[in-house]
Formats: sequence, C-alpha cells, structure tokens
Amino acid sequence: MHILWNDQIVNREEVKIDIEDRGYQYGDGLYEVVRVYNGHLYMMEEHLQRLWNGAEKIRMQLPFSKEELTAHLKKLVEIEGIKEGKLYFQVTRGIDSPRNHALPDPEKVKGVLTANIRPYERPLKKMEEGITVAVVPDTRWLHCDIKSLSLMGNVLSLDEALRQGFDDAVLVRDDKVTEASAANFWVVKDGTVYTHPDGNLILPGITKKKILELARELNIPVKEEAVYEEELFTADECFVSGSLTEIVPVVKVNDHIVGTGKPGKVTKQLLDAYIASVDITCGMVGE
Amino acid sequence: MHILWNDQIVNREEVKIDIEDRGYQYGDGLYEVVRVYNGHLYMMEEHLQRLWNGAEKIRMQLPFSKEELTAHLKKLVEIEGIKEGKLYFQVTRGIDSPRNHALPDPEKVKGVLTANIRPYERPLKKMEEGITVAVVPDTRWLHCDIKSLSLMGNVLSLDEALRQGFDDAVLVRDDKVTEASAANFWVVKDGTVYTHPDGNLILPGITKKKILELARELNIPVKEEAVYEEELFTADECFVSGSLTEIVPVVKVNDHIVGTGKPGKVTKQLLDAYIASVDITCGMVGE
Repeated sequence: MHILWNDQIVNREEVKIDIEDRGYQYGDGLYEVVRVYNGHLYMMEEHLQRLWNGAEKIRMQLPFSKEELTAHLKKLVEIEGIKEGKLYFQVTRGIDSPRNHALPDPEKVKGVLTANIRPYERPLKKMEEGITVAVVPDTRWLHCDIKSLSLMGNVLSLDEALRQGFDDAVLVRDDKVTEASAANFWVVKDGTVYTHPDGNLILPGITKKKILELARELNIPVKEEAVYEEELFTADECFVSGSLTEIVPVVKVNDHIVGTGKPGKVTKQLLDAYIASVDITCGMVGE
Repeated sequence: MHILWNDQIVNREEVKIDIEDRGYQYGDGLYEVVRVYNGHLYMMEEHLQRLWNGAEKIRMQLPFSKEELTAHLKKLVEIEGIKEGKLYFQVTRGIDSPRNHALPDPEKVKGVLTANIRPYERPLKKMEEGITVAVVPDTRWLHCDIKSLSLMGNVLSLDEALRQGFDDAVLVRDDKVTEASAANFWVVKDGTVYTHPDGNLILPGITKKKILELARELNIPVKEEAVYEEELFTADECFVSGSLTEIVPVVKVNDHIVGTGKPGKVTKQLLDAYIASVDITCGMVGE
C-alpha cells in the first residue's frame, strides 16, 4: 500500500509520524474523504474548497496549492490502480517541538499531509434495507463546520448508538436534530425535505450540497430548517448522506419505525438521481 | 532525549507513530502533564486516577496497570536525570487499520503510550507580575472533564486571546466563566474564593483540588460556584491554576484592571501555601 506523505509517494512502512506532530498531541488538523468513481475524484473542487475554508477558520497555512495537492492525490490513485475507492487525506499543523498550545509560526512549522486510498463499494445493502439510528445528545464543540481531526465527540456518539444496538446516532442539540455521527441527516414530511442549515452546528456536506441541487431539479420542495427531535417520530422518511454513504434510508429511530419501515419514495428518487449524476460526471453511463 | 514508548525507553529518533494511530486520525486518546519537583512526580496518584476516570468515560482499555505506568515514568525521569521538569504522557486508543469511526476491539487494538520529560522552572515572573486574559466564548465540547487529545477547541481559544495581545483566554459559556484555555480559573470577591464546580464543563484540576484543601486549612472561604462574566469586572482578585502554572495571578481582564493591578493578597497566600506544600511533599525544605 502506498501513502502520499507530504509531496512523496512512499510505501506505508516508510511513513514515520513524529510524536510531537500537532495532529497527534492536539487533534490539530483537517481531513477530507473523497469518493473515487471510475478513477475520478468526485466533487474534488468542493472538497478542496472545504479544506481551504477549514484552514482559514483554524488559521492554518496549507503547505501546498490546490493544484499540487490534486496532482499528488491523482498520482496516488493511479499508482494504487483503484477505480472504485475512498480517498482519505489529512493535514496537520505539523511537528511542533517542544509541545506548546500556542500556534507555531507557519514559516517554521509546515503542515504534514498523509493520504491513502482503499477500495470501496457502494453500500447497496444499506441502501435497500435502510439503517437504524438512536437519538444521542450532540455534545460536540460549536465549530462542527470545521472538518477537524479532533473527532472524539463524533466517535463517542457513534459508539453510544452502536452499544445500544443501532447503526448510527442521530444527534440532537437543544431539542433540534443536527446531523448523524459522520453524515448529514434529512427528514421528509408531507413531501417536503428538511435538513439542518449550514452554520457552526453541522458539517457543510458536499453530498448535502449535491442533494439540494438535485431536489431543486426534481421539483422536490426542500427547507434547510432544523427539525425538532419529536418530529423524527412523525416523519414520513428519514435518510443520511455523505461522500461514502451517498444516500442511505433510515428506517428506525430508537424504537420507532419510520414511515412503512422501508426506504421511502422521496429518498429513493433522490438516490436514483444522485447515482445518475455520479454516472454522468464520472463517465460510467453505458459501461 | 529519551521517550517512553509503550513499555520501552528509546531514543526520540526511534519512535515511529503510525498514520492510522487513532490519536493521529481522531484525537482519540488521553493525556496528563505531571510536574516533577526534586525528582518526585507530584500528585501522581491523582493524575493516574484522572487518567483512569477518563479512560472509563471514553471506554478505552488502558494497556498497563497504574504500577507499571508509574514505574516506567519514574525510570524515564531517572534516565533523563531531570529534577525539575514537566512530564508529559499520552495514551491513544491504538493503531486501527483500516480507519473506522467505530471503536476497535480492545483485545485486538492496544493503546499506544508515549511520554517525555523536559526541564521546567516555576514561572516566577508571571507569579510576580500576573498575566492578562481576554474573554473568549467557550465553544468546546460538553465533556471538558475528559483530558482528551481532541484539543482543537482549547488551542483555538488560546490563539484568539494571543492574537488580541493577551496571555490567555478566560472562557465563558452561557454568560458564566468556565476556565482558562488550559487551566482552572478563580475569582476572589469580598474575601471569598470562587471557582467553577467540577462536572462536564471544566477539567477537574489536580491543582484545583489541592488549592481547595489549602484554602480550607487557611480558613479562606471557598465556593465552587460559577461566576458570571460581568463579575470578572468587579472581582478583587483573579488567578489561574494548573500543574505547571501552579497559581498565577490575573491582573487584567480585557481592558479592565483587576483590583489594584497587582497580584492580590488571597492569591499570594494560596500560592505561598501551595509552594510550602510542594516543598514538604517533595522534600525540598531546607535544601
């Protein structure tokens, strides 16, 4: 397995992360997960833009240009020869020795980039059968718009749901649904699709953005409004979205069956449109 | 420089952290900073207890006993020959490959421990002159009692204060003072000392605990009650506390001078008592 390590592509065994990398001691860095379809980096520009936005928010100087990063990632994908995959990359604020909470001078401490790609297949079973979610309090920080490496809150909320026997968590803050543990969350009621507006409480999902576009094209009414926890139990449909997840129906919230307990009509309509859009963009139509 | 790496003491250059260590990809781990006085690990039992409490909260199985960890840390201190130092150690949930948000089976994935010690001297200048703090919104997660490696919130709040020209941040959530960016915060008003009660909004400081004991011995009234932000501006004295900081007076909050602008009487009384207590415990009296 090859790893992109800063500007080098090396064997996994060669990579050596420093004990005083700020990613290791502070979770001080950003990451992205890009879905690779037919060898194409899907919605790469949007992922890059989110990374750059995040870097500005955490006042981190990225040690590469968008063009350089993209070129290196494409080379990694090519070397690994993976057509259908998940491409993970992260950049930390770099090696800061001795450890010090204050941000280092970016002229002296350069960010550390690592990336890998692994084969990945569309989660067809989940798309057909749906998943279950448990309501879990959203105890994360108030900058959830930043795709940061400080993920303890996300990890623990997922674990809470898994331990209760559910597939994922639906997070609730101040009685309102924010998102899932690592995906955006959507509710369909009387033909209208609801999802939490962007802001500091959720991640501005790339797939969310695409779904909003598709819904408009399909004339499905969408409101970017937070729904109350109790509305989960009267929803006609629920689903989650993400770059790897695409669109996966939610058929159970706590002990409550959503709608008919099967993936809903609007959810399927959006999923079909999403897959069609991917196929057109990545040149898979007719293959 | 030597590093304690799991159960081995090695040269710093030999340590190789894996790219899929959960500490590096999720900030999934815990840390402690212990002050070493005269070669003694000060209040080590309390630090160990907090580490174990944290591990239980994040459902992490620590890969060593308290006795093993202590023995290894003491050996590191001895090898480095540092009498006055800061001993940093962290333990992550281990190397989890391929990356997956769900917690790994602790039977298969063992935690990764790293520790180092560096010389450290009491911050005398700050103790004599005091520091300045800026009020910064507390946007961290709702498990601040866990001394987790997901420290982005702490790091950014400190940076916010530094960029405004202050030495530290005093964090405010829902109009109430929680703590500083990496220290507990205290307010003295009409002879009574106030500090935020333990719970999910602050770190249960080891130094805080000691100060509470000392205040009782000195018959200084203490209330573990959160003070409102506005009360910062009518306080007679303010100070911060921590294992390295010990007790450092705060002489300015935003543009407002605290009390006389000099370290206050109660603060100094507590600091003297703290230093005396350290001296007795670590056998430095008369040296």
